[in-house]
Amino acid sequence: MKYAKEYAVLVVGAGHAGLEAALSCARLGLDTLLLTLNLDTIGKMSCNPAIGGPGKSQLVREIDALGGEMARAADATFLQLKMLNLSKGPAVHSLRAQSDRAGYMRYMKKLAENTPRLDVKQAEVTELILAGRIFQGVKTKMGFEYYARAVILTTGTFLRGEIFIGLESTPAGRLGEFPADALTASLNAHGIRTGRLKTGTTPRLDRRTIDFTKLQEEPGLEEKHFFSFETEGSLRPQQPCYLARTNPRSHEMIRANLDRSPLYQGMINAVGPRYCPSIEDKVVRFADKDSHHLFIEPESADTNEMYVQGFSTSLPYDVQLKVLRTIPGLENVEIMRPGYAVAYDFIYPEQLTRSLKLREFTGIFAAGQINGTSGYEEAAAQGLIAGINAARFVCGQGPFCLTREESYTGTLIDDLITKEIREPYRMMTSRSEYRLFLRQDNAEDRLLEKGRAAGLISAQRHQKFKHSREKIEAEKIRLAEFKVLPNKKNTEFLLSLGEKLTKPSSGAELLRRQKISLLSLKELGFSTVLSSAEAEKLEIEVKYSAYLTEVEQQIRYAQDAEKKKIPPELDYDAIIGLRQEAREKLKKVRPETVGQASRIAGVNPADISILLVWLRRLLKTNPGITSPGF
Amino acid sequence: MKYAKEYAVLVVGAGHAGLEAALSCARLGLDTLLLTLNLDTIGKMSCNPAIGGPGKSQLVREIDALGGEMARAADATFLQLKMLNLSKGPAVHSLRAQSDRAGYMRYMKKLAENTPRLDVKQAEVTELILAGRIFQGVKTKMGFEYYARAVILTTGTFLRGEIFIGLESTPAGRLGEFPADALTASLNAHGIRTGRLKTGTTPRLDRRTIDFTKLQEEPGLEEKHFFSFETEGSLRPQQPCYLARTNPRSHEMIRANLDRSPLYQGMINAVGPRYCPSIEDKVVRFADKDSHHLFIEPESADTNEMYVQGFSTSLPYDVQLKVLRTIPGLENVEIMRPGYAVAYDFIYPEQLTRSLKLREFTGIFAAGQINGTSGYEEAAAQGLIAGINAARFVCGQGPFCLTREESYTGTLIDDLITKEIREPYRMMTSRSEYRLFLRQDNAEDRLLEKGRAAGLISAQRHQKFKHSREKIEAEKIRLAEFKVLPNKKNTEFLLSLGEKLTKPSSGAELLRRQKISLLSLKELGFSTVLSSAEAEKLEIEVKYSAYLTEVEQQIRYAQDAEKKKIPPELDYDAIIGLRQEAREKLKKVRPETVGQASRIAGVNPADISILLVWLRRLLKTNPGITSPGF
Repeated sequence: MKYAKEYAVLVVGAGHAGLEAALSCARLGLDTLLLTLNLDTIGKMSCNPAIGGPGKSQLVREIDALGGEMARAADATFLQLKMLNLSKGPAVHSLRAQSDRAGYMRYMKKLAENTPRLDVKQAEVTELILAGRIFQGVKTKMGFEYYARAVILTTGTFLRGEIFIGLESTPAGRLGEFPADALTASLNAHGIRTGRLKTGTTPRLDRRTIDFTKLQEEPGLEEKHFFSFETEGSLRPQQPCYLARTNPRSHEMIRANLDRSPLYQGMINAVGPRYCPSIEDKVVRFADKDSHHLFIEPESADTNEMYVQGFSTSLPYDVQLKVLRTIPGLENVEIMRPGYAVAYDFIYPEQLTRSLKLREFTGIFAAGQINGTSGYEEAAAQGLIAGINAARFVCGQGPFCLTREESYTGTLIDDLITKEIREPYRMMTSRSEYRLFLRQDNAEDRLLEKGRAAGLISAQRHQKFKHSREKIEAEKIRLAEFKVLPNKKNTEFLLSLGEKLTKPSSGAELLRRQKISLLSLKELGFSTVLSSAEAEKLEIEVKYSAYLTEVEQQIRYAQDAEKKKIPPELDYDAIIGLRQEAREKLKKVRPETVGQASRIAGVNPADISILLVWLRRLLKTNPGITSPGF
Repeated sequence: MKYAKEYAVLVVGAGHAGLEAALSCARLGLDTLLLTLNLDTIGKMSCNPAIGGPGKSQLVREIDALGGEMARAADATFLQLKMLNLSKGPAVHSLRAQSDRAGYMRYMKKLAENTPRLDVKQAEVTELILAGRIFQGVKTKMGFEYYARAVILTTGTFLRGEIFIGLESTPAGRLGEFPADALTASLNAHGIRTGRLKTGTTPRLDRRTIDFTKLQEEPGLEEKHFFSFETEGSLRPQQPCYLARTNPRSHEMIRANLDRSPLYQGMINAVGPRYCPSIEDKVVRFADKDSHHLFIEPESADTNEMYVQGFSTSLPYDVQLKVLRTIPGLENVEIMRPGYAVAYDFIYPEQLTRSLKLREFTGIFAAGQINGTSGYEEAAAQGLIAGINAARFVCGQGPFCLTREESYTGTLIDDLITKEIREPYRMMTSRSEYRLFLRQDNAEDRLLEKGRAAGLISAQRHQKFKHSREKIEAEKIRLAEFKVLPNKKNTEFLLSLGEKLTKPSSGAELLRRQKISLLSLKELGFSTVLSSAEAEKLEIEVKYSAYLTEVEQQIRYAQDAEKKKIPPELDYDAIIGLRQEAREKLKKVRPETVGQASRIAGVNPADISILLVWLRRLLKTNPGITSPGF
């Protein structure tokens, strides 16, 4: 039965990807339908209720600069905030929130339900309806078929989800939640290739059974920092997290029970996340370490359930309990829900374009774990991009794409579509060759104009940003003009910081020195007019200006290669001289630019030279061939 | 794998029955484990988020007087309160709350998690472990076996739950939630007989798509009333509900689609609740009515989902939508989740004793929908009784039972164990022959001493109640002694109320007249010192004293029959002269008293006479034979 209302865009799944996708489509003016297996689990954090951290806080700030929601939601619902890596360089400074899982869900459900043009309905999507390769609609179980111009698939761990605890397994998307068992077959029937990944989560502990006096308390931030550039107000009271440690006894217990590990018994026919290993994985792979850190973290103000960061596991329930009880502070712990592994279907992401559309199809987009990623932030960033692009596709506009050079979001998508991802992909700062530039503090500088162009940033916010940027630039000039003389007072003060002053210097020159902060210049007579966030930005830009100039040079080189577009229909078989391996890889990935082609594993510089020559000749005869489009 | 910790009591299911059961066991000092399929759905109201109403508010007040939790939770989380039936007699006055579904769940989850001696864990119970007929423990899916002295089964609609929408069906306990598919087979294997019932719920509507200007607003209470005798403070702001009406067009639409109704196509092999029929049932059964009332009610402050009281349905999704859109105010409505029917297994409740233990087993109790009832209040009342009894069983104390004469709770249980219930049983005031006595206002008078004896009422509360009762009794004396003379002022005032005064009368005499309230006596010079709740009680006791005396006489007669216990092992085959039908029924129900025996359908007064003669003879030879025990 066809539903009478025709939507512009359907979004399948209401997790972190689906929410950003649906919100952005509706905000861009399109009638959007968000379909979820359960209206009570909208925006659920399946694993650790935490947002941010290295590589991820940068994504969250980018989402915010582009007009997405995750940053505001995280600010509204944190239980604790921390700024990680402050002792390291600014490229890796990362804000991290311990979130209130229940509060985050309430925030997102309420927002989605109150967003104009967005309908939210509970239903399981079982089939895609296509006309040839053109998307028409979806079939749902127990009800209607919904029709639309585009669909965004954000199925998380639910596609044929299967849960493992010890040698037991059961179909489920999350523990206690139905999987979506039918849709994969429909994808495959249309020629969309899928594989299988796995991820896992930790047991949840009863707060009342933990001896916190034996754990190390980890308090939250004292200085005010938020994810969203728009969040104002003061810092709310925070809850502590706690550090616990495994010991040789814990590890012995794990080793003794690997014969009941589904992972080590080959029961899970799927690849897990390399950078988020289970505790049994850590004990086996790092056999020389006799202790691992575990963070015991609150899940919500509404519950006594505590998360155990670092203790993801699919060991049998009894082993989970026994191992935990070897840990000081957890001797009498009670588990409220066991940890488990979950295996699920994903689509090979090299089937996607940079706009997160399935290359061979019209109107089918995908975002989040279905594309092979891991993490809420990765999912949300993709959801936002897929949402913007689905909306642009419906409106007949060209694709909206971000590059590696300007964003982690672009880096993420470039990696997904280029690198034949076959294990859960997690963002890390090391994924970016431009990470000194792609910082969390300058996300607005990098992306706000793009967000504004995409239609998700208000004029007011845009104006506010420009004003702030102007303030910083004016302050830079004032700082360059501000002279510090090597008098007694000044030299003594600088000496107290461990810096010398032998000749008259500008404020900017001094700020470039490592131990001198903008704040310390106050003692030398320079009082800044900037807010603390602006001051941070200016300080980094001045202090690291030499490095940043270097990075900008690299970026320009890279951009040249990115400007060299490759026609989507290029016949690689016709190119003479390409090595067979390169030819196969290029045909599989179908890179959109020469830059992307050069990043494909198995394509070497000689192949790129041959490709470049071929492209030059092609363009001479047919200059319009590389025009972008969906 | 056996769980190391041994509990005193296990509770299977964390709905309204399971929560009262688990809380009471833990509060009585026993190590209790509450097992639920999902820690995120503790205390979920599967259907209308509402508590109370006729027959049910009385149960809630009884739960409160016995030391249960539902009344306090309802007071803490209502969105609206109403006092129903105020134009009728006091027997049917009933408080009703529209509850905040999400808020109620938060309240209950938090309370359960913070109750000392109560552990809460997520697991599916798949098997009972017995030694002969003695309960030992339960097996769970994906994990441990838990051992205890007693178990309380409160499985709601989850035992082999199956959901129907139109001609589609799917296994589920609630829409989007896993059923418990394994446990029934284990019950049956041990000889516990089960049947199948069904119930249903309504679609949930998107508040934004309703035109409230076309609906009749139903505001909440202005006077302060709460469920719990302990709740203090003032009335919170309330949300309105709305009245809508079906029309001939709606009914025509339903009739035209009965060929796609699972109910009318014989797909659901289970009996539904007679007093809570689906809309299609109402249209078919009351074919002459051309309109039915529907109440559009808020589900939670956290959501736009609206409930449609009166529109329970398992019609196909498209028909649900079409029918709703025939209703003024709902022309453009969007459904967020469809209505559905759910069929589930229950145990034939005549297998239970008055303590809610399975008669033929040691240590197995059951409460709520598994016993064939419908409704949160019915479930909670049973949960409380089962909890108290499981605790008493473990502690070697005798059973704690309530009678029909003192409570709706006792009436409910007596009906369950006597009447071979084969359709969902819902409490109504008409179920009680003593309903003028079993009022919501006097629940504490009826049951607080019992709650105190059971160990769930604090000395402080008990003291407070006694003090209040003494105040009322003193006021009654003052009222009897207060003389009103037929002077001009008094007669004129009473005439204004429509009452005459021709001779000197006491305040009590006047209060017995229909149109004179305690408050109106103030004009005659009698100012009461009572609170409004106390004043209400006194007024009813005085005004209806003649009727109440009559009821008390009936109760005394009934109590005589209830005092005549029947030995649990009585050999009915040995009784000479019993009719065959009566013999079969008595063997099946195994009544605990002659009173109960006389209420069994198919047992007539002549059978009772024969039984009485037999019992008298038996008791002469064996006086200890009827001693109570589990």
